[in-house]
Amino acid sequence: MTAEAQAIDFLMADLWPMYRSITGEGTRETLRRIAREIPLTLYEVPSGTRVLDWVVPDEWNLRRAVLRDPAGKVVADTDVHPLHVVNYSEPVRCQLSLDELKPRLHSLPDLPGAIPYRTTYYHRTWGFSLQHETVDRLEPGMFEAEIDATLEPGALSYGELLVPGTLQDEVLISTHVCHPAMANDNLTGIAAATALARHILPGTRRLSYRFVFVPATIGALTWLHAHRDGVGRVRHGLVLSGLGDPGPLTYKRSRRGDAAVDRVMAHLVRGRGSVLDWHPYGYDERQYGSPGFDLPVGRLSRSVHGTYPEYHTSADDLSFVRAEQVVEAVKTVLELFDVLEAGLVPKSLAPYGEPRLGYRGLYGTMGGMVGHASPEMVHLWVMGLADGEHDVTDIAERSGLPLRTVIAAVRSLEAAGLLTH
Amino acid sequence: MTAEAQAIDFLMADLWPMYRSITGEGTRETLRRIAREIPLTLYEVPSGTRVLDWVVPDEWNLRRAVLRDPAGKVVADTDVHPLHVVNYSEPVRCQLSLDELKPRLHSLPDLPGAIPYRTTYYHRTWGFSLQHETVDRLEPGMFEAEIDATLEPGALSYGELLVPGTLQDEVLISTHVCHPAMANDNLTGIAAATALARHILPGTRRLSYRFVFVPATIGALTWLHAHRDGVGRVRHGLVLSGLGDPGPLTYKRSRRGDAAVDRVMAHLVRGRGSVLDWHPYGYDERQYGSPGFDLPVGRLSRSVHGTYPEYHTSADDLSFVRAEQVVEAVKTVLELFDVLEAGLVPKSLAPYGEPRLGYRGLYGTMGGMVGHASPEMVHLWVMGLADGEHDVTDIAERSGLPLRTVIAAVRSLEAAGLLTH
Amino acid sequence: MTAEAQAIDFLMADLWPMYRSITGEGTRETLRRIAREIPLTLYEVPSGTRVLDWVVPDEWNLRRAVLRDPAGKVVADTDVHPLHVVNYSEPVRCQLSLDELKPRLHSLPDLPGAIPYRTTYYHRTWGFSLQHETVDRLEPGMFEAEIDATLEPGALSYGELLVPGTLQDEVLISTHVCHPAMANDNLTGIAAATALARHILPGTRRLSYRFVFVPATIGALTWLHAHRDGVGRVRHGLVLSGLGDPGPLTYKRSRRGDAAVDRVMAHLVRGRGSVLDWHPYGYDERQYGSPGFDLPVGRLSRSVHGTYPEYHTSADDLSFVRAEQVVEAVKTVLELFDVLEAGLVPKSLAPYGEPRLGYRGLYGTMGGMVGHASPEMVHLWVMGLADGEHDVTDIAERSGLPLRTVIAAVRSLEAAGLLTH
Repeated sequence: MTAEAQAIDFLMADLWPMYRSITGEGTRETLRRIAREIPLTLYEVPSGTRVLDWVVPDEWNLRRAVLRDPAGKVVADTDVHPLHVVNYSEPVRCQLSLDELKPRLHSLPDLPGAIPYRTTYYHRTWGFSLQHETVDRLEPGMFEAEIDATLEPGALSYGELLVPGTLQDEVLISTHVCHPAMANDNLTGIAAATALARHILPGTRRLSYRFVFVPATIGALTWLHAHRDGVGRVRHGLVLSGLGDPGPLTYKRSRRGDAAVDRVMAHLVRGRGSVLDWHPYGYDERQYGSPGFDLPVGRLSRSVHGTYPEYHTSADDLSFVRAEQVVEAVKTVLELFDVLEAGLVPKSLAPYGEPRLGYRGLYGTMGGMVGHASPEMVHLWVMGLADGEHDVTDIAERSGLPLRTVIAAVRSLEAAGLLTH
Repeated sequence: MTAEAQAIDFLMADLWPMYRSITGEGTRETLRRIAREIPLTLYEVPSGTRVLDWVVPDEWNLRRAVLRDPAGKVVADTDVHPLHVVNYSEPVRCQLSLDELKPRLHSLPDLPGAIPYRTTYYHRTWGFSLQHETVDRLEPGMFEAEIDATLEPGALSYGELLVPGTLQDEVLISTHVCHPAMANDNLTGIAAATALARHILPGTRRLSYRFVFVPATIGALTWLHAHRDGVGRVRHGLVLSGLGDPGPLTYKRSRRGDAAVDRVMAHLVRGRGSVLDWHPYGYDERQYGSPGFDLPVGRLSRSVHGTYPEYHTSADDLSFVRAEQVVEAVKTVLELFDVLEAGLVPKSLAPYGEPRLGYRGLYGTMGGMVGHASPEMVHLWVMGLADGEHDVTDIAERSGLPLRTVIAAVRSLEAAGLLTH
Repeated sequence: MTAEAQAIDFLMADLWPMYRSITGEGTRETLRRIAREIPLTLYEVPSGTRVLDWVVPDEWNLRRAVLRDPAGKVVADTDVHPLHVVNYSEPVRCQLSLDELKPRLHSLPDLPGAIPYRTTYYHRTWGFSLQHETVDRLEPGMFEAEIDATLEPGALSYGELLVPGTLQDEVLISTHVCHPAMANDNLTGIAAATALARHILPGTRRLSYRFVFVPATIGALTWLHAHRDGVGRVRHGLVLSGLGDPGPLTYKRSRRGDAAVDRVMAHLVRGRGSVLDWHPYGYDERQYGSPGFDLPVGRLSRSVHGTYPEYHTSADDLSFVRAEQVVEAVKTVLELFDVLEAGLVPKSLAPYGEPRLGYRGLYGTMGGMVGHASPEMVHLWVMGLADGEHDVTDIAERSGLPLRTVIAAVRSLEAAGLLTH
């Protein structure tokens, strides 16, 4: 296991027990732990603040939720597993019959050994999540439900790190930090974003990079509200989620469908993953890509949420994910950064006739025998299409050359003074 | 049989015996009969009037045409079947040998029991149409031909009904009224247009609707000539013809190919009919779509004219068509009207981030379990693409949702104050 | 054999022995011979002249190159075959061992009986080309190499013929004249360009036609440099090369991909040849299509260079090509000229409604029976799409009619006063 994979595993293990939600101490603790890896700035936005069409809700903090059967036996206890309570349940302490209780119980008949993840952020109610095999065994009688929680004015927390480059143009990396006790969704996204920030921090870059760790939906909306006037600087973006499961990489296009990030990512996952067209359900790319903002933000995942049985259940634990899978995702995003840094649209500085490649050491000297995928040919492809209207993915597509080959040629031709961007 | 189908049957039965042509009393009578159903205004345009590149011809009125064989036996008589004479034949009374007669006889070797429909509007000549089995039995000798008709200055007649809406933008429905003694072509088109007008008259609509009943070609040219300066108001249009035969619905695109009417009709006939690309032969969509006008007018038919043996013969009689088939076409066009009225290009009034659908009762309250084709998902698709650049057919195509589902969501989101158009 | 084929054969036989390179007397002699067929103007550009990113090289003239084995036996002699010397070898007279000699010998293990064509225009060195079977038999010992040549300041020669038309808009036909002792590449290109010029000279044309006979690459660059300000007049162009081999016609698109020449040529070779997308390797279309000039210049060839074993070897001799193949290519280009002359984008002079085709003798007189590919239908297609936005290839594609049928209809409709362009 590489050092990178180990760092990812350590971080995920540390984050695992923190009890996250869209607000509360568990989320704050999560952000503070990330801030030990990278210089994250933490923000607190008070409950009641209007953010776009929404309002920051009261802060929820859970001490413990316990459900006891008529015999006094504990059938659900958040100290045993945090998912046993419906997230954002209002505080309650009462006795009720099995018939009264049933509508408040959530379980999965198809996955009887797993506890489902349920939330009720914007509708005041309460409930418990149980293994379906437990629900099946419940006997009539009076149950005792106790949810020891507070749901009071407080704040929503999020973290942000801006790594400035030469240009103000930004690359946005966003991941959600609100899911408790699930590994793939989304400790892997958090770990990947943290690893990427660690890679970006040391060097000097052309572009600026902004890393955003937010509660899903309301957190992204809060960030967008706060940055309403500056989001135009976001030229490329990715939401990271679910990157550690055994599935292949999946890129979901931004709403624009053919933004630079869409075109480059489609090339990068080609042959080892799949590309999905934009659709309105998903994670925070929904907010970044809403018609008013329309930011070019896609999403990188592995198995699509909702298509694997472990999704949003207690089966999505640390044994379900592998750090190496996260590392592959990180490497893919670093390749994206490389392409973005190299300049997307090369422009020839010698556009009239072919330049003397041989004279510049970029072409074989003996005429009459140029092969098909030789370095010479790659240089000819790039110079031939470097008219300021073709980007590197166009060149890769029209030439049939791998994107990284095209990028390498762009770099060598730029070094030879033949290209700019 | 529904009331609508019955009304269609009654109208077609009434119109059947009227002897129509591009001018003359039979056409006038036809228009007057339609005017008993809907408040049609009748226009008369004198022979000799220049209309675009054409001239309104002399008016033709036939009393009777009879052809007698050498034995004096009647072999063709328009009192037996109106198609026995070539439409617009000049008056004649003469005797001639079988050899002289042959070039003036029209019959169908492949359909020996049917009388073909032939016309000679713009070339002065005369002739008879016969069953091929009759032609085969003719014996040599002197025949007597009598065509008792007038072909003299008169007028061309057409009818028009404008149902004004809130906007001056118009939907044009055009159908031809010149074909005698054929049911599918075009009593069904006349009946469908009449039924549509009856549906449109009572309510209040956003768009204006214009119904045009014209002789084919010269009638459409005459109407276009008269409305030369106002045709720009026509935003969507349909020519109706041949809607009662047993074939599936066929939509022929306008010359533009991707006008709104083309996009919507393609969705509406999907799965139960077919869509043809524009081509220059057909009915009056030829004139409306000529390059100078280029109106977005498609054509709705069933079996394409020329592809079924009954076409333009005496076999296209009332037994060949069914009122229920006409009703289905009427319903389809009403669906088109619904889409056009609902507004083609929805525009979000809450484009920054997703709006709170739950808050407005448009989203389930318990998080974590949104299905794929749920109402929530439909609302998300529409809000996600309601950027003023996607029309409802784009949204239907990108989402894979039926067009009527999208329209319903547009309506509910507009009612919730989230959309305009 | 036709007179045209015979003229092609005579010209190729005359040109065969002239020892061509990118400069020198053999090339001059070639241009003078072409000038006996057509009124070509010859240009001389001094060595050292800067042309775009390049410099005109010193002039190379070879008297004879001979390689003798240790026994004094001649193993390579340009008097036996001109390809035995690497083209542009510097003068040399020396003795050297087999080990020293080996790197300077070029042969083809896969085609042991053929002598490969090698050049070293921009890198001063020398070498011999041999049959591989000869190389295999060489025994150790001291060899004697003598290349009796001059490589000194002189000039680069090229020829040009402008046939002015009514318009200054130009059609450019370019072919390369630098290859020695190879028939397909490129005596066939020279012969085809010469034949085309002979066809164009007598008549009166709308467009101007420019024929350019240049050494490959440096010659095209030199021509472009000289015409830098006027190349905008080139509206359509073709590079001709390799037109006599047994393969089918191959059209390579210009860099633009959908220029008029691309669209028309794609139609003309359809069904009897193939169309290649633009790619940066090839002949002088590389220079004409470089991003700064971006001229709409495609290439017509038969078998693509590099894909047939005879390419760039002594096997590409006069027995490898047939004049009839060149004639077919000439005819195809003449068809292109016909289309360009007929006007690419017909515009209706009677765009409002359909014009009276019957009145003008362009339509049958008896109504009710128009067939599918009749002349009437062709006229309707052209008039229907003659809106100034569809070119003749669009009309051919949308109608499914052959391009030449469309062109014929354009001509007859123009004669009838219904079209202009």
